[in-house]
Amino acid sequence: MPTLRHLISIDDLSLVEMESIFEKAREFEEDLGGWADICRGRIAATLFYEPSTRTRLSFESAMLRLGGGVISAADMRTSSASKGESLADTVRVVAGYSDVLILRHQSEGAARLAAEYSSVPVINAGDGSHEHPTQTLCDLYSLWCERGHIEGLDVVFAGDLRYSRTVHSFAYALARFRANIVCIPQAGFDLPAYVVRRLREEFGVEPVKADASRLGHLAAASDVVYLTPQKPHQLSLFTDPKGMSVGHVDAVYMTRPQTERFEEGTVLDETNYLRLNQTQLAADSLRDAVVMHPLPRRDEISSDMDADPRSIYFKQAARGVPIRMAILSSLLETEVVLQGPAVVAGPTWPSQSAGMACINPGCICNTEERHVRRSFRLATRLPLRVSCPYCSQEITFGLVGCSSRHQFLARDAREVRKIRPEDMVFFRDEAQGVEAGYSPGAGASQVPPV
Amino acid sequence: MPTLRHLISIDDLSLVEMESIFEKAREFEEDLGGWADICRGRIAATLFYEPSTRTRLSFESAMLRLGGGVISAADMRTSSASKGESLADTVRVVAGYSDVLILRHQSEGAARLAAEYSSVPVINAGDGSHEHPTQTLCDLYSLWCERGHIEGLDVVFAGDLRYSRTVHSFAYALARFRANIVCIPQAGFDLPAYVVRRLREEFGVEPVKADASRLGHLAAASDVVYLTPQKPHQLSLFTDPKGMSVGHVDAVYMTRPQTERFEEGTVLDETNYLRLNQTQLAADSLRDAVVMHPLPRRDEISSDMDADPRSIYFKQAARGVPIRMAILSSLLETEVVLQGPAVVAGPTWPSQSAGMACINPGCICNTEERHVRRSFRLATRLPLRVSCPYCSQEITFGLVGCSSRHQFLARDAREVRKIRPEDMVFFRDEAQGVEAGYSPGAGASQVPPV
Amino acid sequence: MPTLRHLISIDDLSLVEMESIFEKAREFEEDLGGWADICRGRIAATLFYEPSTRTRLSFESAMLRLGGGVISAADMRTSSASKGESLADTVRVVAGYSDVLILRHQSEGAARLAAEYSSVPVINAGDGSHEHPTQTLCDLYSLWCERGHIEGLDVVFAGDLRYSRTVHSFAYALARFRANIVCIPQAGFDLPAYVVRRLREEFGVEPVKADASRLGHLAAASDVVYLTPQKPHQLSLFTDPKGMSVGHVDAVYMTRPQTERFEEGTVLDETNYLRLNQTQLAADSLRDAVVMHPLPRRDEISSDMDADPRSIYFKQAARGVPIRMAILSSLLETEVVLQGPAVVAGPTWPSQSAGMACINPGCICNTEERHVRRSFRLATRLPLRVSCPYCSQEITFGLVGCSSRHQFLARDAREVRKIRPEDMVFFRDEAQGVEAGYSPGAGASQVPPV
Repeated sequence: MPTLRHLISIDDLSLVEMESIFEKAREFEEDLGGWADICRGRIAATLFYEPSTRTRLSFESAMLRLGGGVISAADMRTSSASKGESLADTVRVVAGYSDVLILRHQSEGAARLAAEYSSVPVINAGDGSHEHPTQTLCDLYSLWCERGHIEGLDVVFAGDLRYSRTVHSFAYALARFRANIVCIPQAGFDLPAYVVRRLREEFGVEPVKADASRLGHLAAASDVVYLTPQKPHQLSLFTDPKGMSVGHVDAVYMTRPQTERFEEGTVLDETNYLRLNQTQLAADSLRDAVVMHPLPRRDEISSDMDADPRSIYFKQAARGVPIRMAILSSLLETEVVLQGPAVVAGPTWPSQSAGMACINPGCICNTEERHVRRSFRLATRLPLRVSCPYCSQEITFGLVGCSSRHQFLARDAREVRKIRPEDMVFFRDEAQGVEAGYSPGAGASQVPPV
Repeated sequence: MPTLRHLISIDDLSLVEMESIFEKAREFEEDLGGWADICRGRIAATLFYEPSTRTRLSFESAMLRLGGGVISAADMRTSSASKGESLADTVRVVAGYSDVLILRHQSEGAARLAAEYSSVPVINAGDGSHEHPTQTLCDLYSLWCERGHIEGLDVVFAGDLRYSRTVHSFAYALARFRANIVCIPQAGFDLPAYVVRRLREEFGVEPVKADASRLGHLAAASDVVYLTPQKPHQLSLFTDPKGMSVGHVDAVYMTRPQTERFEEGTVLDETNYLRLNQTQLAADSLRDAVVMHPLPRRDEISSDMDADPRSIYFKQAARGVPIRMAILSSLLETEVVLQGPAVVAGPTWPSQSAGMACINPGCICNTEERHVRRSFRLATRLPLRVSCPYCSQEITFGLVGCSSRHQFLARDAREVRKIRPEDMVFFRDEAQGVEAGYSPGAGASQVPPV
Repeated sequence: MPTLRHLISIDDLSLVEMESIFEKAREFEEDLGGWADICRGRIAATLFYEPSTRTRLSFESAMLRLGGGVISAADMRTSSASKGESLADTVRVVAGYSDVLILRHQSEGAARLAAEYSSVPVINAGDGSHEHPTQTLCDLYSLWCERGHIEGLDVVFAGDLRYSRTVHSFAYALARFRANIVCIPQAGFDLPAYVVRRLREEFGVEPVKADASRLGHLAAASDVVYLTPQKPHQLSLFTDPKGMSVGHVDAVYMTRPQTERFEEGTVLDETNYLRLNQTQLAADSLRDAVVMHPLPRRDEISSDMDADPRSIYFKQAARGVPIRMAILSSLLETEVVLQGPAVVAGPTWPSQSAGMACINPGCICNTEERHVRRSFRLATRLPLRVSCPYCSQEITFGLVGCSSRHQFLARDAREVRKIRPEDMVFFRDEAQGVEAGYSPGAGASQVPPV
């Protein structure tokens, strides 16, 4: 059996593959009703542990447009899951009924776990606040359709940038495509530090304070930050006291306040929330910016924008169908689109230590303990960062050991570079390392407390 | 883009169009399994804000029989609507996933609103207590199949005629087809005055007290009223002291007590409710009357009727499939059936005044304020009656103004006839008119208080 | 119209028919995606009064694989049933929308009632704790695929044998195929007496205490009983003090504790529940036993068994699709498989007496009184046992009368054999018989109190 391709994270796809998917989606979009033979006799199962009508209908429409069939569990939490079955078991059973499995789950990392147990391709239709790659592909595809390319575009993110999973995923993807991001956050709802750090460390993106005077009312109430994948020496050209000037915008991506994900104590005066309308978007720099929104919206885009030709949010939603047709037909291999394994995500190694547990309480690791494979992903080698391969959250440790030499080092010691990933063992502190039978190596004395 | 045809109200269809639909439905019914290519590659979305399994399954069966696909949200209220999305937005999104949208909603007028925002045909599958046109078409089609025509038939309505939306809609439709209606209401559950008035004013139907002696037990406990679309001078032939005699019945249409729609304070002793059985239907005049019921029934048709050849209620339910096949294929234009715009419903005009708000608390106007188009429908010009184009309820006003002359008149003044609908402005009273900058015109002094 | 075939009980199928279904299923299984024309234009309705995602998805997948369509009511109890409609009415309506009806219901006997009212074939997808014939067929089919035949196999049943409907049905079916059953019950959860009695009376199966020394750890905590359809004189060969020795096992069928069906007062220490793992299954006699489970499992099969080649429980679940394809295509007569009426189930006779009521409170008889046909099934003539044709529970009576002679006899009187079933009347006691106008016949004086 050849290796199955899944779509768990946008990182599972190379840039070339994404562009192939966009080309295929455009071909489908040109005549949505004309492909009813492509997946004839094939079945998609939609397994939704939390209801999400919009996402489910979009997938089901895509599969039906391809001529396939759909079996659907729109709210698994109220049915067989109540008999106490593990996700790993449910996935193995339902994979036996279908040719592709579309999973929505409240736990981060659930889709990755499902892929490990499924005999058919798994598509992540949202796993907690972690990933929702088909939404990101839909956003990228919309931009690509409207602008013809993605590299070098200037995309404004406005509103709640702190809790919006959609914005974070879209930001990473834009950075990979070397597009620029202009952040106009609601006050107090900036991009989180860990997102900015990943943008910098993995994609070489630098944030600079921007001169937003040409954005008009849109930027009146915010500190605007410009994130660009340019190299540092290029950036220095712009770092004058006023910051980089934003002169032309290709897209404004608006988000609603993600109140359901607010940390305890978060306060938002909704009457004061950013609201896009004709006035906000009157500046010359926004003249031909497309207005996007992942929907549903509340009030954050005024209905006076609905008839504005710049508003493409409903077209963007409709494009969820052809992009998902492209994804389904690729994974089912009825169309040749995906060429090989993904190259972006760091490789995953089996974990050798009990010190490695993922600390994210929302991670599937903590609800399906018996079925997860203890492992870690190398996020970066310098500095050495490792993350949970399910939920992607960084795992904290103080020491890294080498299982062949039974020695441990401080995580930021130079010699750490010489340890092969398959030999790595992680310890919280010296006591844990010694208990496991390891002794301090060169550099171990530099260990700072975690 | 040619104008979309929707099916929001039975009034959206001309009599000729309805008969074309019946012909098409009969063709489908003759071989239900033989049309699986007609809507191949097309998708229907069923968007149900309140569950109605029977209606939903009937539509889905119809679409599948035509070879199309179905995406289904069986209970929208528990899913994405909970994120606070407006109906207008949901409709625009789901229309992007499908080729026809079937909507069930608890608010009156919801389907009309949906049609204004949808990019694909909308079918009203029930909007509150307002309309359910495919049920009415199913009832008409059953009668047409059984009798070969509708004009001139005598149809008995029995049971709760007050709260049954089905009965009201069917009555209007029968009147348009110039059939006669015999009302045998449960005591206290007569046809409401506004239904009788509409029957009289729009369709020229006159109610007369009937001589029901030939109906036997069926009419024993009720005052029977006969409603006929004959012209008054013809009717006078029958208005002897005993009323018109009912001598032959073509159909008995029975309804259950609509307890869920009872106004507060309504009392019904259910043990005393009309119950059709062999005894009730023994009269010679009922010998070949078909027995109909929109279902579900409780006890109001005895199971001893189930094997009676006159009972067609299950056949009537089954005919919901071919009639909906005819409707779907017409709206999707895979079959040429609908010839032009509907002619029955009064035209709608944009509203020019704040005095015009619909007063029906169940109307979609009051839950989707930002998305309704303020407008009115001219129900009749003499007397001048206007209604809400969403929920069809009459709107009350005391004065009508002319926006070109900035004068107002009493609503029943003769000069009102000269005001063009596009100039009409409605005021509750003089104070409101004056406040809007209007002055009394000729006839204004005749204004009675509302 | 030819007589409809339904699948309400496994007893509706002859052994030859079951083997034809297995052959057909294997043909389907060899190329699951290659049959999308067989049921083109046909529609299955899944009508589930209690949610069972797994069963529903399996049926829907099967119908889609055959190219048919599916209309689905995944949780009827929350929808139209709330308007108080009887099952008999709902079935007649939904049968009008579809070509085959798949029913899941909480009341025992519901599927039998549905079959009496449906105009299309009905498939029982579980009626309370009564039957779930497609599960049993799936289990038999899996065994047949793995072993090539069923007759003479040795099948271990382990765990909760008392409350598992699945085990009881599978046991009857194995007995019909003349396979042997080895019971390894959780302590206190043996096969119920009524199951053992039916195995003995209807299928000639004799239970003997078995020598389980060769089963190793698996049987360490239980008294093992061996049930075999051998004739008594053959059995006597084995009834030495140590019982029959179990030397080779073909399959181990494990079940979870059916806590939701426990009678009040039942106590189970779940930490002490039988748990299959490598140690339990290490004995030589289990070397090539396949491990089966109807799923979902909790902990009763350790995940260390998942990769063991003997474990076929996920394959078993997947086989639910081809076996249901075979059933659907047989009942829809697109494939010629079923040859005639079932021969196993006793014939049903109209009941002539008020004394006959079914005493099972969970039986559909007691919720749909107006729609059940008062009747009884002759389970055995000697001794005379009659059962409810809906829920199959035995009906208790003290006297049996003859309606042509108006006499009654004790139920175990010799003369009872001469009463023709169509003349049988059942009485609780003499008082009831006399009240009905019957007098004691020869043998009546032998009546013991019930």
